[in-house]
Amino acid sequence: MVSIRDVANLAGVSIATVSRVMNKREYVSKNTEKKIIRAIEELNYVPNPLARGLVGKKMSSIAMIVPDIMNPFYPELVRAVEDTCHKQGYTVILCNTDDKKYKEKSYLKVLKGRGIDGFIVASSMLDKENIATLEKENTPCVFLERLPCDKPRSLIQVDNFNGSILAVQHLLDVGCNRIAHIYGPQEVPTYQERMNGYEEVVKSLPWYTSSYMIAGDSQMEGGFKAVEKILDRHPDIDGIFAGNDLMAIGALKALQRRSIRVPEDVAICGFDGIAVTIMTEPELTTVAQPIYEMGELAASTLIGKINGDITDEDSLYVLGVELIHRNSTMKMRKT
Amino acid sequence: MVSIRDVANLAGVSIATVSRVMNKREYVSKNTEKKIIRAIEELNYVPNPLARGLVGKKMSSIAMIVPDIMNPFYPELVRAVEDTCHKQGYTVILCNTDDKKYKEKSYLKVLKGRGIDGFIVASSMLDKENIATLEKENTPCVFLERLPCDKPRSLIQVDNFNGSILAVQHLLDVGCNRIAHIYGPQEVPTYQERMNGYEEVVKSLPWYTSSYMIAGDSQMEGGFKAVEKILDRHPDIDGIFAGNDLMAIGALKALQRRSIRVPEDVAICGFDGIAVTIMTEPELTTVAQPIYEMGELAASTLIGKINGDITDEDSLYVLGVELIHRNSTMKMRKT
Repeated sequence: MVSIRDVANLAGVSIATVSRVMNKREYVSKNTEKKIIRAIEELNYVPNPLARGLVGKKMSSIAMIVPDIMNPFYPELVRAVEDTCHKQGYTVILCNTDDKKYKEKSYLKVLKGRGIDGFIVASSMLDKENIATLEKENTPCVFLERLPCDKPRSLIQVDNFNGSILAVQHLLDVGCNRIAHIYGPQEVPTYQERMNGYEEVVKSLPWYTSSYMIAGDSQMEGGFKAVEKILDRHPDIDGIFAGNDLMAIGALKALQRRSIRVPEDVAICGFDGIAVTIMTEPELTTVAQPIYEMGELAASTLIGKINGDITDEDSLYVLGVELIHRNSTMKMRKT
Repeated sequence: MVSIRDVANLAGVSIATVSRVMNKREYVSKNTEKKIIRAIEELNYVPNPLARGLVGKKMSSIAMIVPDIMNPFYPELVRAVEDTCHKQGYTVILCNTDDKKYKEKSYLKVLKGRGIDGFIVASSMLDKENIATLEKENTPCVFLERLPCDKPRSLIQVDNFNGSILAVQHLLDVGCNRIAHIYGPQEVPTYQERMNGYEEVVKSLPWYTSSYMIAGDSQMEGGFKAVEKILDRHPDIDGIFAGNDLMAIGALKALQRRSIRVPEDVAICGFDGIAVTIMTEPELTTVAQPIYEMGELAASTLIGKINGDITDEDSLYVLGVELIHRNSTMKMRKT
């Protein structure tokens, strides 16, 4: 059987370089990439973990439960899970629940007893009854963002509270004096934590009252409408921290429609770091979650649990976030 | 077993309304939706095709092969496939190939002989050898956009040529006198057809030379760079037709960076109808493909083939496209 070493030899590069090209996560020159792909095709090379998967054992599959792959946060997460699983010979079954309990239930029922090796659950509404179904069958699970119960379970989340503090402190640093917060649905803990972070920074400032907080609905449209309302209430705002990027994009549109300049008149910061934040003009400052890394970690943790190498107690992660400073907050500091 | 009729009775609505809520594709009032979801949860109702799937037969799965779920065209397509399959009791295995033959090959090998019922292939690079593998096993397949061979096969594509004529004619209608075309990679037939549509309209116009066509690379960045080059070559352009929406968004950004007004100075039209076209300001005029319908049709065709109800010859579809007129071409016609 052809090995990765044969590919490296034929292409005249190191094994590490071949691996980088196949995993597509790090920079390799176009020229080197071409040589390696030519060698792979010439040798008819099939990556090793996949080759191992071919010996006729039962299909190894995991199910990935998301609210909606069309929400721009999930494609990158799903891609990371799928890349990681593929390398280990697992296939990924995709399930969209629209955050509806009855849809979650129907997926769990359909998948039950059909040899699914594990679940990655990124759907925030998973309820106790559905969890009990999984527990009874001892199916390995990894949760994203939130736990559905009080017991310790494998969980990957980010530090929403401190990320929001970063965002609001940044708006103050660039010279904002009145910062509004557009918040997402408060039944979702993620948005609660982000609101708490905002309040933590502004609560002691002389101008602050809770009327600077306004509900969005987590979508672009909600951010758009929220800006129209907050401007009636507080025409003096010069900064907006939105509970996610989609609401921030809606806020940007609403301001531009009223010919309010971003960032000169009002600076905007979002949260999540989804790809569309570089498609707007100005590009959007955001608190970026390490989305791809979260997906990788979820998949490798799940596979570790399936293999019995990792326990629930071993796998509680709170990942850091990063403020990406772009033009939507490139304000000159007022003196 | 609880039926959809029981849900409708308890909620006090028609069966059709329950179905609309569960499929989430048509408008139902929030209030009615709440009543229905309460009834579903109270009765512990599991939709019927799923219930049928529970009687212990082997898992029914199809594989969906896309280049990259992070490309904003695919989430809606995959969502439609998954919705349609879920209703029929099929699960969807997602595969990302990055349009690399060796990755396609590795998926086909991993999935081979593991009871996958069929494939939906939206990856344009699938080569003859890989197709031969599928044919030898008589695995039902449905292709999107392009056929990998000359024989008739189930194929769902859109009318790229006439869609492009629509776009360019629209730019002329709103008063553009010099229209550039940013084209995608010409080894992809889709982009070839779109370029042909552009040429069909402009070739007889007195100002036209082929120097009004410029290569993008199908991504936002390529559209951005193409505008910088075309403005050096033809500073008099007042319209741009981009071969896809991502390049159109890049073009919009490049113009805005140079303080060239869109649409007053230069109007822009894209192609595809992806969701991000409403996130820019101005929003982007585009030739929209019926993305969700393409996914639905691909899935129902594949299931029809799996069941032996549909043949290859029965399932060649060319779907129409629609020009969505938004602010990026809201130009006053010059006289």
